[in-house]
Amino acid sequence: MEADSPFLLATVSLVSALQMGYFARRVGWSRMAHKVLPPSVTGPPEFERTYRAHQNCVECYPVFLVTLWTCGMFFSEVTAAAGGLVYIIARQLYVNGYAKSTKKRLPGFYLTLAVYLTLFLLGLIGLLRGILHKYFHIHL
Amino acid sequence: MEADSPFLLATVSLVSALQMGYFARRVGWSRMAHKVLPPSVTGPPEFERTYRAHQNCVECYPVFLVTLWTCGMFFSEVTAAAGGLVYIIARQLYVNGYAKSTKKRLPGFYLTLAVYLTLFLLGLIGLLRGILHKYFHIHL
Amino acid sequence: MEADSPFLLATVSLVSALQMGYFARRVGWSRMAHKVLPPSVTGPPEFERTYRAHQNCVECYPVFLVTLWTCGMFFSEVTAAAGGLVYIIARQLYVNGYAKSTKKRLPGFYLTLAVYLTLFLLGLIGLLRGILHKYFHIHL
Repeated sequence: MEADSPFLLATVSLVSALQMGYFARRVGWSRMAHKVLPPSVTGPPEFERTYRAHQNCVECYPVFLVTLWTCGMFFSEVTAAAGGLVYIIARQLYVNGYAKSTKKRLPGFYLTLAVYLTLFLLGLIGLLRGILHKYFHIHL
Repeated sequence: MEADSPFLLATVSLVSALQMGYFARRVGWSRMAHKVLPPSVTGPPEFERTYRAHQNCVECYPVFLVTLWTCGMFFSEVTAAAGGLVYIIARQLYVNGYAKSTKKRLPGFYLTLAVYLTLFLLGLIGLLRGILHKYFHIHL
Repeated sequence: MEADSPFLLATVSLVSALQMGYFARRVGWSRMAHKVLPPSVTGPPEFERTYRAHQNCVECYPVFLVTLWTCGMFFSEVTAAAGGLVYIIARQLYVNGYAKSTKKRLPGFYLTLAVYLTLFLLGLIGLLRGILHKYFHIHL
């Protein structure tokens, strides 16, 4: 471990991993509350919404990690970590909202998209700058 | 960011993350076209194939990232990045094909397997060489 | 590739990726044995348990990778790699058990949780130590 290690990116990643564990746990609690025994994933609407909310987070999580670390390593660690914290809040809004109604998932969903777009574009800028520098000797 | 940063691996990862977002979007479009409201994931065969195609990509994506980066960091970055581009093409063929019929997913599926095998074996060679060097002082 | 590259973490990651491929393959074999054609994911209880076991591994895998690498990069590579091997064993027990009965998934499930908790806490200790050092100049 070196002094300039990406502590902030790693911390945000670890917190987001904990959040994923919490979302998985919520599906477990919903199973118990609605008596939906595994391996079944169908049941009352509230259970199915909680289950789908978790599945959506599972679909999103690797994409988030890639954009977080690309933005953090090639553009700015502090900016990426801040974006990562907003992502964690966005997912919390999404899952809390989806558990209540299908429509209430939308604010968290749009905030997730905004974070993705920001991390993606800043990461892309950093990468293009680096590629121009390394392979074409163009210094921006 | 240093001059020898893995720009190519990061670029391929970022493009593949964008592709995952596009596949998720296709499920959303298929929901609208076939009037399948969330959280439901069952409906007409075309919707269910599009949904399953995306789920399969979700299952594959972390495995791809691990083999891409292992091959790229321990064997050759250019080879791994080229393999990553083939993976992105393979997944596009898979999802496009699966949306048409179950059978048409197979060419993209087999190409995905070929990329996995290549990245895995080259990564393994790189790792074994590194471990022999570091822990057993054997220089191949 | 440098002499102090994290060979052990990369090797454990690559083996776990291979295991994920094997679990996906088991779902394919179960499809054939029980004549469950894609894109369907419902069928006899044994198929549905095998399918859900794989899905659970898909949900767990990115969380595992984050905790493995955080513990390995910021606390101790050898400890993290050992934890990773236990995780691979835990997942094997989980999938083998779940394929037999819903209840038999539990030993592997609890062992998975124990590995998560260990990797998470050690990673957190390493990160906090690093952050105190880098941003607050406190040397523990």
